[in-house]
Amino acid sequence: MKTTIFPLHDDAPKYKQIYTRFKRWIERGDLPAHEQLPSIRQLADSLQVSRNTTLMAYEQLVAEGYIRGEGRKGYFVNELEPLFAPAPAPSESKQQTEPLPPPLIDFRAGAVDHTHFPLAIWRRIASHVLTARESYLYGNPFGEMCLREQISAYLHQSRGVKADPDAIIVGSSTQQMLVYVGHLLKDDVASVIVEDPGYDGARLAFQLNGFALETIPVYETGADFSQLEHLRSRLIYVAPSHHSPYGVSMPIQQRQALIHWAKKRQGYIIEDDYDSEFRYTQKPFPALASIDAASVIYLGNFSKSFLPGVRISYMVLPQPLLHRYQTQFSHFESTASLLNQLTLARFMKEGEWYRHIKRMRLVYRRKMQHLVSELHEHFAQRISIIGEQSGLYVLVKVFTNRSEDSLIQQAALHGVKVYPTSLYFVNNRTEHPVVKLGFGNLSHDEIQLGVKLLAKAWL
Amino acid sequence: MKTTIFPLHDDAPKYKQIYTRFKRWIERGDLPAHEQLPSIRQLADSLQVSRNTTLMAYEQLVAEGYIRGEGRKGYFVNELEPLFAPAPAPSESKQQTEPLPPPLIDFRAGAVDHTHFPLAIWRRIASHVLTARESYLYGNPFGEMCLREQISAYLHQSRGVKADPDAIIVGSSTQQMLVYVGHLLKDDVASVIVEDPGYDGARLAFQLNGFALETIPVYETGADFSQLEHLRSRLIYVAPSHHSPYGVSMPIQQRQALIHWAKKRQGYIIEDDYDSEFRYTQKPFPALASIDAASVIYLGNFSKSFLPGVRISYMVLPQPLLHRYQTQFSHFESTASLLNQLTLARFMKEGEWYRHIKRMRLVYRRKMQHLVSELHEHFAQRISIIGEQSGLYVLVKVFTNRSEDSLIQQAALHGVKVYPTSLYFVNNRTEHPVVKLGFGNLSHDEIQLGVKLLAKAWL
Repeated sequence: MKTTIFPLHDDAPKYKQIYTRFKRWIERGDLPAHEQLPSIRQLADSLQVSRNTTLMAYEQLVAEGYIRGEGRKGYFVNELEPLFAPAPAPSESKQQTEPLPPPLIDFRAGAVDHTHFPLAIWRRIASHVLTARESYLYGNPFGEMCLREQISAYLHQSRGVKADPDAIIVGSSTQQMLVYVGHLLKDDVASVIVEDPGYDGARLAFQLNGFALETIPVYETGADFSQLEHLRSRLIYVAPSHHSPYGVSMPIQQRQALIHWAKKRQGYIIEDDYDSEFRYTQKPFPALASIDAASVIYLGNFSKSFLPGVRISYMVLPQPLLHRYQTQFSHFESTASLLNQLTLARFMKEGEWYRHIKRMRLVYRRKMQHLVSELHEHFAQRISIIGEQSGLYVLVKVFTNRSEDSLIQQAALHGVKVYPTSLYFVNNRTEHPVVKLGFGNLSHDEIQLGVKLLAKAWL
Repeated sequence: MKTTIFPLHDDAPKYKQIYTRFKRWIERGDLPAHEQLPSIRQLADSLQVSRNTTLMAYEQLVAEGYIRGEGRKGYFVNELEPLFAPAPAPSESKQQTEPLPPPLIDFRAGAVDHTHFPLAIWRRIASHVLTARESYLYGNPFGEMCLREQISAYLHQSRGVKADPDAIIVGSSTQQMLVYVGHLLKDDVASVIVEDPGYDGARLAFQLNGFALETIPVYETGADFSQLEHLRSRLIYVAPSHHSPYGVSMPIQQRQALIHWAKKRQGYIIEDDYDSEFRYTQKPFPALASIDAASVIYLGNFSKSFLPGVRISYMVLPQPLLHRYQTQFSHFESTASLLNQLTLARFMKEGEWYRHIKRMRLVYRRKMQHLVSELHEHFAQRISIIGEQSGLYVLVKVFTNRSEDSLIQQAALHGVKVYPTSLYFVNNRTEHPVVKLGFGNLSHDEIQLGVKLLAKAWL
C-alpha cells in the first residue's frame, strides 16, 4: 500500500482511529483484497504510536473479518462484497405543522391525581427493593409470587373472587394480556362478542389475533341482551362493574344471564374489571368471577386505582385455560417491571394501597361532585351528564346540531381539551354528540375554569 | 317474610351485614321473588340500627338488581335465575414435592451484578421523576420521546446505527416486541429462518404467530450460511454481535452476505443486539443496522447492560414497516413502565448509563477471567470453554459420557446450579454435553467455591 501516514487527533483512542481508517479503506476498495498491510512495527513507527496501539487496531480488524493474520508472513486484506449504499439518512417524517399551544385545561381521562400520591412511602419501599438481590434477576414469567398473593387477598376481600395466587397472571397492560391470551383462544373460537359502544383498545387486541367481532348494544341505561342467543360466538368481552364509556353496572339478572349463557355454550366471559374501585354511591358490585370462576377470565389493573405509569395488569384464568397458558408461556419473560412489582407488593402488604384507595375515593368523589355541579350550573338542560356515579370521568351529551369534532375543536380554540367517544362505537351511535371529560388529575380550580371555558366555547 | 331479626357483629359495617344477609336469602330462594321486604323503618327498629343503615343496605341491593323499590309501596324481591353452583375452591395444583434446599452457588445467566449498582443516583432520579405531573399519565404508546432520543444517540455513537427517535419503538421485552411486530410480518411471510442453536425465546415468539421455522446451523466457530440460498423464507432472525449461546460474532463477510441476501429477496433481517456492550477483547462490532438500515429490524434492550427488572426493550423499524406499526398500534398502551422509562432517560442524559457500562465492563471482565482461570485449574483438558470473550456467561463443554441432565443433577447434589443449553438446539446437537454458567451476580469467592464444587461433582 502507498502510504500509511495519516494525522491522528486527540478526540478518540488512537487504536480506534487507525482501525477506522483501515476499515474505510478496505470497504471503499482503496485497499484491495489480499494486499499485504504494513507490519505492526512499521505502522507503529510511521504513525509514531506504540506497537500495542497498532496491534489493538489490527486485532479488531481481524476479529471483524476485514483482515487476516498469516503468522510470520504478516497481515492481509480479506475479500469483501462490494459495499452497499450507505444507510439512508434519518426519515423526514417529522411533521412540522404549527402545533397548537398546550391546552390550559386538559380533561384527560387517562390521568390520576398527583397531589395525593404517597410519595414518601413509595420512595421508601422502592429504595428498599433495590437493596434485595432478587431485584437483579429477570423474575417470574407469570409475575412475582409476593404480588400475586396480595392480589389474591384483595380480590377475595373486595371483589368476592376466590383466586389462587397460581391462577393469577401478571402482565403490563390489559391489551398485552388480551393479545397473549387471545393466542390461546383463537384456535377454539373465531369471533368474540363485544359491547357497542365498548373499549376500543380491547377490540383492537382481538382483531390483532384475527377474531371477528359480534356486538351487543349498550345504552345509557344498560346492555340489551335480547339478541345474545342469536349470536354465534361463545366468547364475550364485557365490563360489568363499570361499562366503558357509559359507566353503567350490570344488574344481577344480567350477570346471571351471562353466566348461564357461558355455561350453556361452554364458553368464556372476559370480565374487564378495570375501574371498580371508585364507586361513589354504593360499594363496588361483586365481580362476575365471584359468581362463577369457571367461566370467567377476570382482568384487573392498577392504572386507575394506583398509577397508570407502573404498567401492571393481571388476569385470573380458569382451569384448564390456566394450564394451557402456563405451558405456552413458561419461557416468555415477564412484561411487567420487576422493580414496580416488588414495590407494589410490599406497598399492598403494608396496607398502603388500601389506604390510598380509600383516600382517593373521597378525593375523586369531591372532584366528581364539583365537576357535575359546575356543568349543571353552566349548561343546565342543554347537556345530559352520564356516568357520574363512578370512575374518573363523565360523559357529556350535548343537545346541539354540531358534531363531536366541531365541539372538540371549538373547545380547543378556547384552551380546553375534551375527548371524543366516537371511537368506542361500532354501529350503535347516539343521536347527539357525546364527549368525555376526565378529571383525575385536575384541581377544583382547574375543573371550574375548564367548565367555564367550555360554556364559552359551546353556548 | 317470617323474621327480620338476626345478630349483628362488630367486624364489618352494619349496612354491609344486612346487605349480605338479604342477598344470601334471595339467592337461596329463602326470600321468593316478588315478596315484600320490611320497610326501612321496621327493619331499623327490629335490628336496632339507624334508618340510614337499612337504607344503605337496600340501596346496594337495588343497585345490584336483587330488589326493587316501588315508591310508597315499599321494597320487593326481584326474580333471579336459579343459583349456580358456588365457585370451585382454589385449585389444588400446588405440587407438594419436597423441594431441594436453595443452591449454595447459582450460576444463573439472567442476573446482573448488584454490588456495583448506582443506587444513590438511580434513587435520586426515580424520586425526582415522581414529582413530575407527566408521571401520572399513561404515556406515549411507542415509548417516551426523551428515552427514544437517548437511545438514538447511544445507537449512533456506540453501534453506528443512525435511527431517528421516531423510528424507535419502546417495549417491555424482546419477546413481547417480537410478538407484536410478528403480527405485521406474518401476513407477508410464512416462515422465519433462525440460528440452530439459537435463542429459544425468539422461536417461541415466532411460533405463537404461526411462523414455520427454517434453520441455519451455527458452530462454535460461527454460522454456516452455505444453505441460506436454498431456504424459502425472506425473514431471518440472528444475533450477529453475540450469538446465543455460543457467543461468536459474525465476521464482516457474513454480515455483508446477509444484507445482500435480504436485498435480493426483498426481505428483513431481525438483528437481536441483546448483549453487545460487554466484549472484553475488542470493542463491540458495528451493528448490521449500521450497514443497511433499510433491511434490518434492530432489537436492543437494557436487561444485560443495566437491569433486567426495568423491563425495557426497544426496536428500530425500517420504513415502511414503521409506518405500518404506527398505524396498527397507535391505540395500544405502552407495555413498558413509564416510571422506569422516565428515570432511565434522565439517567442516560446525565451520562450515568455510560459510566455504568464502562465500570461494569471492567467488573465483568475480571469475573470472567476469574471463572475461566478457575475452570482451567480444576478441569484442565477435561472441558472446553466456549464464549469467554464477551457476555455474562460461558459455556462449558464437558468431555464425558454423561448427559446434560446428569451433569446438572450431579451439580445440584453438590449445591451448585448450572443451566442446560439443550433448549437452544433444534437439530444441530453437539457430541458432548454443554452447560451454561452465568456469573453476573456472583462474587469472586462465590465463583471460586462454585467451580470447586463442580469439580467435586463431575470429576
